[in-house]
Amino acid sequence: MSDVARRPVVDLTDEEARLRLPLKWGVPDDVIPAWVAEMDYAVDPVVLEAVQRMLADGITGYPLFGWDPGLAESYAGWSARHFGWAPEPEAVHPVVDVTAGVRLAIDVFSGPGGVVFPTPGYNAQFGLATVTGREEVRLDVPASADRAEIDLDRLDRLFADGAQTLILTQPHNPWGRVFTRTELEGIRDVVVRHGARVVSDEIHAPLVLPGAEHVSYLSIEGTHDHAVAVVAASKAFNTAGLRCAQVVVPSAADRAVLADQPMSRNDSHSPVGAVAARAAYDDGDPWLASLVERLDQQRALLADLLAAHLPDVRMRPLEATYLAWLDASAYGHDDAAAVALERGRVKVSPGESYAPGTTGQVRLNIATSPDRLTRIVERLAKAWA
Amino acid sequence: MSDVARRPVVDLTDEEARLRLPLKWGVPDDVIPAWVAEMDYAVDPVVLEAVQRMLADGITGYPLFGWDPGLAESYAGWSARHFGWAPEPEAVHPVVDVTAGVRLAIDVFSGPGGVVFPTPGYNAQFGLATVTGREEVRLDVPASADRAEIDLDRLDRLFADGAQTLILTQPHNPWGRVFTRTELEGIRDVVVRHGARVVSDEIHAPLVLPGAEHVSYLSIEGTHDHAVAVVAASKAFNTAGLRCAQVVVPSAADRAVLADQPMSRNDSHSPVGAVAARAAYDDGDPWLASLVERLDQQRALLADLLAAHLPDVRMRPLEATYLAWLDASAYGHDDAAAVALERGRVKVSPGESYAPGTTGQVRLNIATSPDRLTRIVERLAKAWA
Repeated sequence: MSDVARRPVVDLTDEEARLRLPLKWGVPDDVIPAWVAEMDYAVDPVVLEAVQRMLADGITGYPLFGWDPGLAESYAGWSARHFGWAPEPEAVHPVVDVTAGVRLAIDVFSGPGGVVFPTPGYNAQFGLATVTGREEVRLDVPASADRAEIDLDRLDRLFADGAQTLILTQPHNPWGRVFTRTELEGIRDVVVRHGARVVSDEIHAPLVLPGAEHVSYLSIEGTHDHAVAVVAASKAFNTAGLRCAQVVVPSAADRAVLADQPMSRNDSHSPVGAVAARAAYDDGDPWLASLVERLDQQRALLADLLAAHLPDVRMRPLEATYLAWLDASAYGHDDAAAVALERGRVKVSPGESYAPGTTGQVRLNIATSPDRLTRIVERLAKAWA
Repeated sequence: MSDVARRPVVDLTDEEARLRLPLKWGVPDDVIPAWVAEMDYAVDPVVLEAVQRMLADGITGYPLFGWDPGLAESYAGWSARHFGWAPEPEAVHPVVDVTAGVRLAIDVFSGPGGVVFPTPGYNAQFGLATVTGREEVRLDVPASADRAEIDLDRLDRLFADGAQTLILTQPHNPWGRVFTRTELEGIRDVVVRHGARVVSDEIHAPLVLPGAEHVSYLSIEGTHDHAVAVVAASKAFNTAGLRCAQVVVPSAADRAVLADQPMSRNDSHSPVGAVAARAAYDDGDPWLASLVERLDQQRALLADLLAAHLPDVRMRPLEATYLAWLDASAYGHDDAAAVALERGRVKVSPGESYAPGTTGQVRLNIATSPDRLTRIVERLAKAWA
């Protein structure tokens, strides 16, 4: 895509960010927020105008029940363009948000056995297995591991011991990892051996940074009869409040099971979110290209800043997402996030929320201005070092 | 409230309705839709402007986690003004929609025993008990009953046989009933005797018509330790797509249990819906007064039209809602809705969706213009008689 076609990423001022991001920026005036996964950038005007037009037209009523053909085709087109693979539109079904989609998939498609949840894991999905009435089976990647990977031997043993589902988060939050095709094929082989299911949370797929490539789990041969993907435009386009994600159900047999569910299983997505998603999928590329370029720059800046100010922080390579996973345990603080807030006036996410029982780790949100990121790392250095 | 302060109800043209209500009006051009519970009226401009302002400000991000103090206070103020009783604001928690709120309440607060669901019942809530992993126990009100009431002896037996929860829909859809304080006290006595729970779906409370009065189940003495109410502005203000309802949890002990749930239990409401709800609760009275007046007129018109054109239709007295429950079985059609659509080109809701196994009944939506309602009944007469 040529630079001419691009729409720029526009940084929010502090005042704008406080208004637009009430959760992230609901912090004291002297604190810089770098925690929850929202970006300090204005929403792509093409997406915002689409929802504004909808409300100017007075459209506030129910969406269509079940399958939304326009949304499905928009996602299929986007997936083909960005990931080199696309589901058939009939596979794409709206849900209210990604975590609700993961819950739906487990409730409807999984056996009663345990749910394997690799950790560190997305904080909002701890306890999700128990909400579905199943045991949560953690598969821990220790902070000392050279590379954050799913240990296939351990996965094999967990399935042998009765687990029946894997929540695969890819790209992974908070690992920052993009799984390779070879890794995904290895996971598939273990899953197939045990007749298990996979729910692949791919909300961060549009945020793969230069050097890596997103491979949908569903693009791997032999996955369609045991897997669904849960996808959304809302993370890449900063529209978490508008409430529409999509579950991609490639198996016709699974779709028949889904169609047979009581309405109350999945009847809560917002048409406002659906309109935002369609605008992003159809017309968001020129903005997303700028965003990925900016996040790539922020990633490089972070590396420089850490080298200069916090050389003993160990950072997992950031292959995707704008969420850096930092191990600051060399500085000796058990709760590094609390120390960052108290002494540095920076709010980062405590590692404990993603990796219970660990110490010294934090998740840092770098989707902000270069200036703020610089001040954030300077403050972390002051707090920790 | 003086007429001067009123904002009028504005009828949508067919063209406007097709744009704004894509589900209800997703019918062939020659069909008049009178089925799903949406109104052919423009949204109160005060509510619409509030959400437009929010999006003009670019607010599309996450809402606050959990309790939203502004929304809670707006609901408490509204409830005090309209129903003469109000929960403390701490009791009012956002959920994505009313059915999700009912599911949440059963999942979190109810024992594993069956869920009593009085029928005819709201079609979207059939199967909700099974979604929570519990047995659905129907308590049928036969079409021949003089008055649609919950039979307390039968309720007592169902609890004695192991049921542990009652879904109380009040005002009732599709009965059109408003339960009296005496009836609610009778229900409470049976519930308390068995240590059961009540989930009171009160989404239609703002739509009680002249002659009746809404009594929240929570305003009945001795209910707070076993009941929650699920409420919303979205039905009265025609904003079902904006996705915010509220669950009112009057017991501090229950609130502690709720606060302890994994995030994925209840993390999907839209801040767009929350802004719409606040505008409705704070500033919607002058529009709602006009709406109730209009619905009262439509109710009278319907009675006249039925007397003139369909004298053998039996109609449950419409004390609340804009959804009339009609028994057309005297005309001899098993599926009266199918006959209405095929011969009359009117889409009404089949009674079978609310009362499985019955014949000859339909639910008719009267929230439209007098002209459309007149044509609807004339067409029904042509189809059925």
